[in-house]
Amino acid sequence: MARSVEERRRRIVDIVAQEGPQNARRLATRLGVSAVTLRRDLEHLASVGSIRRRHGTVEPLGAPSIAGPDAPTIGLVLPESNYYYDGIIAGAKRAAGAAGAKLVLGVSDYRPEKEIHQAERLITKGVDGLVMAPTPDFATGWLVPSQEERLAQLRVPTVFVERTASPGGPCALLDTVNSAHDVGAAVGLRHLIQLGHRRITALMISGPNSPWVREGLLQASAHAGLEDPQIIMEGTPGSDEARAAVLQTIEDGTTAVFVHNDQLATRAILWLEDAGISIPDEVSLIGYDDVIAGMADVPLTALDPPKREVGRRAVERVLALCGGATSSAVSPADGGATQHIRLVPELHVRQSTTVPREPPRSSDCRR
Amino acid sequence: MARSVEERRRRIVDIVAQEGPQNARRLATRLGVSAVTLRRDLEHLASVGSIRRRHGTVEPLGAPSIAGPDAPTIGLVLPESNYYYDGIIAGAKRAAGAAGAKLVLGVSDYRPEKEIHQAERLITKGVDGLVMAPTPDFATGWLVPSQEERLAQLRVPTVFVERTASPGGPCALLDTVNSAHDVGAAVGLRHLIQLGHRRITALMISGPNSPWVREGLLQASAHAGLEDPQIIMEGTPGSDEARAAVLQTIEDGTTAVFVHNDQLATRAILWLEDAGISIPDEVSLIGYDDVIAGMADVPLTALDPPKREVGRRAVERVLALCGGATSSAVSPADGGATQHIRLVPELHVRQSTTVPREPPRSSDCRR
Repeated sequence: MARSVEERRRRIVDIVAQEGPQNARRLATRLGVSAVTLRRDLEHLASVGSIRRRHGTVEPLGAPSIAGPDAPTIGLVLPESNYYYDGIIAGAKRAAGAAGAKLVLGVSDYRPEKEIHQAERLITKGVDGLVMAPTPDFATGWLVPSQEERLAQLRVPTVFVERTASPGGPCALLDTVNSAHDVGAAVGLRHLIQLGHRRITALMISGPNSPWVREGLLQASAHAGLEDPQIIMEGTPGSDEARAAVLQTIEDGTTAVFVHNDQLATRAILWLEDAGISIPDEVSLIGYDDVIAGMADVPLTALDPPKREVGRRAVERVLALCGGATSSAVSPADGGATQHIRLVPELHVRQSTTVPREPPRSSDCRR
Repeated sequence: MARSVEERRRRIVDIVAQEGPQNARRLATRLGVSAVTLRRDLEHLASVGSIRRRHGTVEPLGAPSIAGPDAPTIGLVLPESNYYYDGIIAGAKRAAGAAGAKLVLGVSDYRPEKEIHQAERLITKGVDGLVMAPTPDFATGWLVPSQEERLAQLRVPTVFVERTASPGGPCALLDTVNSAHDVGAAVGLRHLIQLGHRRITALMISGPNSPWVREGLLQASAHAGLEDPQIIMEGTPGSDEARAAVLQTIEDGTTAVFVHNDQLATRAILWLEDAGISIPDEVSLIGYDDVIAGMADVPLTALDPPKREVGRRAVERVLALCGGATSSAVSPADGGATQHIRLVPELHVRQSTTVPREPPRSSDCRR
């Protein structure tokens, strides 16, 4: 009996070391012992420092289970894995591949609690560094102070992507790689202004980077001496709630609509088509993100944030911070200071933007 | 006579090609001809495209005079060459040296007209790219829109250092390398807060980056749930105008003074010493820039913006944009997007900061 207990306990340590954190109840079933017996084993193993118990799971201490001795492993904690983040992941993979590193993905579904949990889970599993896009307050674009305090205490080198830490908070000491969404939006608005548009509507989702996009729109119109563009929010994501408001601004004289993002722009195309409004002859339309903009039935002029480059540079940087950079892709000249890198989106002009329609002659207004 | 005219004209072309732009009047003196004769020569030479005349100077057209075929030349247009910019220049030199490039310096004395003139002069002389610190509005930290329009039209790759272009303006499409002065100021304020200081005065110069320093101070105190620090401006640079105001805040209960910049901090040390106030026992003092902070009689805790790294990376980047990068110091992995890089200053803790003095017992207040 004494020998069997010892064997079982050694097996528990082996399982968590080789397979990572285990659910305690399932582990009891697997070992064919009662929950009480397993709890006693775990209490003993935790007391001698062989494992760690947390929230009903058994976690390894000591040697990481997912990272080999030569291959650094980077955890990637993103709000989702599709649409925009697909590009981030592609760039991250390229950098990891070039450095012989491994990537592990955790998805947070835009929930701050979940992203902290994912980060801690990956650290427990032995990742050498993290690349994260934590979820800010969508109204302000800033992370919440309590969230910053927790993120600043993660125990491995961490680089944020597509997120701005408050300059006055502790996360400002973490490296960031961002698309400069304010500049991107301004470039888009300037394109419309240079075509001759003066009355522009902005149709916007509510997302983590919407405040920066809005800020860029306001700055560019102020810079051009125009009134602020009229801003219409999408409402419930994926809904047609904004449809009537957009059509009304066009009736009132708007000649161009800036849409953040592409997904919403493809909806707006339908709204306009259904209302018999031709793109771009009657209304110019410009998209943002450039994930699906080129595939719309009227290929959309759009701003293309450098998603792949953001993902690539974030992984290169976190590898350098981990000391795991062996590839020449990581510049040996990068110094020690915390880096906040912003990369400016590119404008891709396609078929959805042109010079504004002639304004109706004043006599037409009364017909 | 005809032959002598031809010879003289060939000599004029040679002089401007070899020595760069020439003042027309001095050129006439040098050639021993009258102003009228020289003007006729210049009119002829300009009409056949051998030289260009502008604002009383004669400029070369054609082959650059300062750049050899293999050595790219970078113009460095800075407001001054001493104090802070000494570090920028040192970093720029290192990067240029590593790439076999040449640097040419132009100083603007913080005058926007002069910096545009310096930039255009260097371009005329054949520089392949520019690194500039244009002079913003000291009250806002932003470049003036008309100035941005001109800077955005410079005809060679240009990288700004220590300057932020408005996201809504045309210069946002230029690369920038900056110290994150807002984050640096916040790190300094947090150091004081962590020591236990609650009543903090900020003593500030009026300079191109002062608005960002102020912003960081306000953000950090808001983040810590404190009232805004009291901000005292220096007044006339180099004066003692702020002295009485600073001493008054200390009498009123301030236990720490954040000083932007070092030069002003060394003055403040004298003010406190003369008033019999001991640093750091009675008042903690923290400097900014870390150029001379370590040499003060009480060695100052100070924020150190990564001046050398800013200069180095700006030159590396402009060389990459010129296509003149041959050194491995320029990462081949840098992509094509415009980059805005912010590097976070480091805190160097020395002897001028400590825990706050005991507050006077309430009974003491009435003595």
